[in-house]
Amino acid sequence: MPRPASGKRERLAEAAAELVRTRGLDGATIAVIAERAKVPPGSVFYYLPSKEAIADAAVDAVAAARAQGIEQWSAAPSPQERLTAYLDAAATNAKDVAASGNAGTLAASLRASAPDAAARAAKIVTDTVEWAAEQFVEVGFSAQAANARALHLVTGIEGAGQLAHALADPTPLEREAAHLSRWVANSRSNA
Amino acid sequence: MPRPASGKRERLAEAAAELVRTRGLDGATIAVIAERAKVPPGSVFYYLPSKEAIADAAVDAVAAARAQGIEQWSAAPSPQERLTAYLDAAATNAKDVAASGNAGTLAASLRASAPDAAARAAKIVTDTVEWAAEQFVEVGFSAQAANARALHLVTGIEGAGQLAHALADPTPLEREAAHLSRWVANSRSNA
Repeated sequence: MPRPASGKRERLAEAAAELVRTRGLDGATIAVIAERAKVPPGSVFYYLPSKEAIADAAVDAVAAARAQGIEQWSAAPSPQERLTAYLDAAATNAKDVAASGNAGTLAASLRASAPDAAARAAKIVTDTVEWAAEQFVEVGFSAQAANARALHLVTGIEGAGQLAHALADPTPLEREAAHLSRWVANSRSNA
Repeated sequence: MPRPASGKRERLAEAAAELVRTRGLDGATIAVIAERAKVPPGSVFYYLPSKEAIADAAVDAVAAARAQGIEQWSAAPSPQERLTAYLDAAATNAKDVAASGNAGTLAASLRASAPDAAARAAKIVTDTVEWAAEQFVEVGFSAQAANARALHLVTGIEGAGQLAHALADPTPLEREAAHLSRWVANSRSNA
């Protein structure tokens, strides 16, 4: 598929991601994607000719945003600072997540309607767990302890984000990010 | 609406709840509800004549199950045991939650399609936070500290449940319930 110099494809993918999360794949029609992305419907159909293409584009958009996030957080000098950067980003984005959901929301929305795309959305979360586990290993935890801590951290943030969206209230995510920031600051390996 | 001596209405409401969570309100059609509940479609239409009625019945089913849970957990003698009963129930039900979602999943599914029903589903979660806060007050925490702890506890369980459903994997919920059980056991007021 040709990629234009303009970010039209990216804009469409971001609109698709928001609509799939908030209205489900059935609700993410060509017409509403066109309206949201301010692109003519014919052009939407050219880039997103099927429900499968809409689901894939939605996952691509959220995966690209997460990959960019992980690259930024990884630039911090210490593993604790990298994990704190992830938590700070979650707190900063809490209002957007409460409004539109996160990677978990996308996976849940797609589970019945587009299982392959849902599995790719779930992988955004499990890849984040792997990234966090690498940081805890660098702190000095064993692989097993690092995995357990990473799962706790990412479950807290991604789960609280899904709940914030369910409740239309950023508070659970903001509070959980603050709680986990203190927990990361106190993370010291006994190894 | 007449309530038959048989549990037909309850069976339909439970089928509606599962289908709305896994397929969205658009996917919870009369035909699939009939198939799931093993009730003739005409009978489904009698009890659930509109999308609004389907959304309301789904929320009623999840609210009734939570009210029953809170009644059971509240029978434990101490506040820590009551909170632990909530956490044990979450761990026991983790596989079902991973398959079909929880109250937060229902609220998220209904946000765009049935906002009033979504708000009632969200209230199932916030009522659980209130119940947990009452337990922490009884442990000896101030109202403010008890509310903060209750939000952390319920965010952990309900958020991890939503994530477990998104990932189709009970592990995040099972681990979070175990983690929070240790946290509750160590809950001692400094007041």
